[in-house]
Amino acid sequence: MQFEINTGLLDEVKLWVENYDNKSIQTLLQDLFPADIGEVLNHLSVEEAAYIYELLDEETSSAVLVELKEDLREEILATFSNKEIAEELDNLDSDDAADVINELPEERQNEVLSHIEDIEQASDIANLLTFEEGTAGSLMAKELVQVYHYDTVTTCIEKIRQQAETVDVMYAVYVVDDKERLLGMLSLKKLLIAQPNTLIEEIYDKDVIQVTTSALSADIADIMQKYDLVVVPVIDTLERLVGRITIDDVVDVIREEETDEAHKMAGIETFDEPYMNMPFISMIKKRAGWLVILFIGETLTATAMSFFEGQLAKAVILALFVPLIISSGGNTGSQASTLIIRAMALGEITFRDWWRIFKKELVVGLTLGFLLGLIGFLRIALWSTFVDIYGPHWMYIGITVGVTLVGVVLWGNLAGSLLPILLKRIRLDPAVCSAPFVATLVDVTGLIIYFTAATIILRGILL
Amino acid sequence: MQFEINTGLLDEVKLWVENYDNKSIQTLLQDLFPADIGEVLNHLSVEEAAYIYELLDEETSSAVLVELKEDLREEILATFSNKEIAEELDNLDSDDAADVINELPEERQNEVLSHIEDIEQASDIANLLTFEEGTAGSLMAKELVQVYHYDTVTTCIEKIRQQAETVDVMYAVYVVDDKERLLGMLSLKKLLIAQPNTLIEEIYDKDVIQVTTSALSADIADIMQKYDLVVVPVIDTLERLVGRITIDDVVDVIREEETDEAHKMAGIETFDEPYMNMPFISMIKKRAGWLVILFIGETLTATAMSFFEGQLAKAVILALFVPLIISSGGNTGSQASTLIIRAMALGEITFRDWWRIFKKELVVGLTLGFLLGLIGFLRIALWSTFVDIYGPHWMYIGITVGVTLVGVVLWGNLAGSLLPILLKRIRLDPAVCSAPFVATLVDVTGLIIYFTAATIILRGILL
Repeated sequence: MQFEINTGLLDEVKLWVENYDNKSIQTLLQDLFPADIGEVLNHLSVEEAAYIYELLDEETSSAVLVELKEDLREEILATFSNKEIAEELDNLDSDDAADVINELPEERQNEVLSHIEDIEQASDIANLLTFEEGTAGSLMAKELVQVYHYDTVTTCIEKIRQQAETVDVMYAVYVVDDKERLLGMLSLKKLLIAQPNTLIEEIYDKDVIQVTTSALSADIADIMQKYDLVVVPVIDTLERLVGRITIDDVVDVIREEETDEAHKMAGIETFDEPYMNMPFISMIKKRAGWLVILFIGETLTATAMSFFEGQLAKAVILALFVPLIISSGGNTGSQASTLIIRAMALGEITFRDWWRIFKKELVVGLTLGFLLGLIGFLRIALWSTFVDIYGPHWMYIGITVGVTLVGVVLWGNLAGSLLPILLKRIRLDPAVCSAPFVATLVDVTGLIIYFTAATIILRGILL
Repeated sequence: MQFEINTGLLDEVKLWVENYDNKSIQTLLQDLFPADIGEVLNHLSVEEAAYIYELLDEETSSAVLVELKEDLREEILATFSNKEIAEELDNLDSDDAADVINELPEERQNEVLSHIEDIEQASDIANLLTFEEGTAGSLMAKELVQVYHYDTVTTCIEKIRQQAETVDVMYAVYVVDDKERLLGMLSLKKLLIAQPNTLIEEIYDKDVIQVTTSALSADIADIMQKYDLVVVPVIDTLERLVGRITIDDVVDVIREEETDEAHKMAGIETFDEPYMNMPFISMIKKRAGWLVILFIGETLTATAMSFFEGQLAKAVILALFVPLIISSGGNTGSQASTLIIRAMALGEITFRDWWRIFKKELVVGLTLGFLLGLIGFLRIALWSTFVDIYGPHWMYIGITVGVTLVGVVLWGNLAGSLLPILLKRIRLDPAVCSAPFVATLVDVTGLIIYFTAATIILRGILL
């Protein structure tokens, strides 16, 4: 079916490079899409990749350029003159070209821009570079076909013919008024089946979803998903049509967002570099912050336990179950917070649902708590049948552990499900560090529940 | 910009329903896209939603149907006759119609199918129902325009005109041979600018990415993302063109996948119902399994600690730092496993990279371990300056805790980063329950590290 990269192929390619066997390399490259060629190069050394890249024809090499890993692209472009880079960029869509320029050292950016032959392309790229990252302006491409509402179908098709080369992918043409303000759009299908002398204003679609240049990428992703769009026009503050965003760029945004969310949930600060490219210092910075905060929070467990040192001294056995109890609360809390955070991310629940969630998770937490509590009790009972590990009062210890588990699991479940909703309500990101944060919270309170239960149940027996 | 739902609007709508104010409702509905109407209905009670749904015209009501929450759709359709449901389905794309039928009670499915007037639509839906969920066959729609390679551009445009009504969204036409085998595709753009008497075979694109009916949805998502496709043709085992999959369905698949991954990482079995619709029993089933397994794994901590009961009895103070130590290992492990799992999901790293990852995480783990160990030591030193909480040997306790933290954090980091790679290597899903699983593993081993360090460092002092 599709191309699949494998070790055998890579070894073969490496051998070809070693022997300067350009013919074999070119035969392989002919059959591949740019995305596949990019994948192969990404798996080779910089030298090997650069060698093969040189063999690509002009158009393919530009298309492959955007498929390369950031660090490989950087290294290859570093060996290029400004003029050579400008030639590559001339073949790219303006949004891809702007992304590539953005990665260059700042002192080279203007140099490269000035070498781009197509003046319109150069000014499009320069314009795109002015928008803030993560906004519609930075995601959009300038290539599009626009027609006036008073044009005819024939004029419109003529405009498409003229721009067929520049606008690679085209799903619709946009209809604007005299002041370039977006009025609506016209699908190519409608255009194909319309009579040549029909006026555009008779057939175009006025209900068109649009975004402004300052719209955030996450919101654009939501909009395109909600309305099932493959392309969305971008307007400026004067409602003039300035670009369009295609779904493929938004799919990448969605994947990045989900990665960010997963990282945040594990207490890692978001980053936009691939894992392998991340320098050591940045990696430590991204991870140490939350680890230290959680560590300091967790020192409260030592404080909490020190209040019960007397009980611990009398019944050392109580210490044995501390990890079991706090981890059960933590695991339940992680489950609950993940469920709620994902449901909020998918728009399934909002703050308004908090009472229904509370009721639901109260019952679920109690059930899970009873289940784990029962297993905990049975485990202690079973062990005590065979070895005298927990002493003569094993049943009271079992009851203490069992009761504590009900309480801790219930509490972990409620904290895990309600905390993200609360965070979202006060406009904090619910995903930030939530699983470990909930775990830390539950650890401290779980210990208090445990030793309080022990003090009550074991009074006069062990304590 | 776009429609945004808010409490004010919802209250107003509820009031209109209460007062049978159909005119106000209809005025609102006129301005909204089906996706917006669906969003409003999803926020109302079943009775309110059903009332408004009845007011929709035929075409809108079908479009809104697929935007409703599953449970609301179920309740509304339950009040419909088979014939009424069939009428709704007649207006839908075959893939959406098949999804709706799939949700009906089995005994109704055939009844409804037999009431669909358009025979072709009925047989398309029946065909789609035969494919397994999660495969290309179940995701695809049958609506497409296909032309023969010996057709002319004029014939092709005529075919598009005939099918313009059925094929709602059209980006390309597909080219097949006499045996209906897929040869390639032709973009509407090319068609628009071609001369009428040109033969299709002179202008169509032969290099076309395709998938088979049995391809898995996750793989289709990867392919469409890699090659930046908005639609992909589906072929059967005889290479005949049988349908097409559009990017909007795949975006939903990507979101579901990411949710599944997040759930698995928190030890929740995957499910495909929205959180709020999940019945109590299913919720317990999805969560209890891993919780119990982790709980049983975690009982090993009690076993591990019982080996050190003697040390604990002599130095109860050691118990105070148990939660702090094991949670630090767990948090570091969660960070590492999340980083690696996401990087693998995005295709950034593979098993081949394990040695580079090991080296990287060894240094990162040591650094983070020294950082937390230092903070831990300083915390004990600081407290001891003001209160005599840790006794005269506080410095040795501080060293024990500090050294343990280096070891536990390093170990948690290595286990967290290498375990997912190993799981993937032996073809298990690396995401399954990884964060809590790593935490449990690190808890047990962390305790052994702690008490071993204590036995060595505190010998002759406290032990």
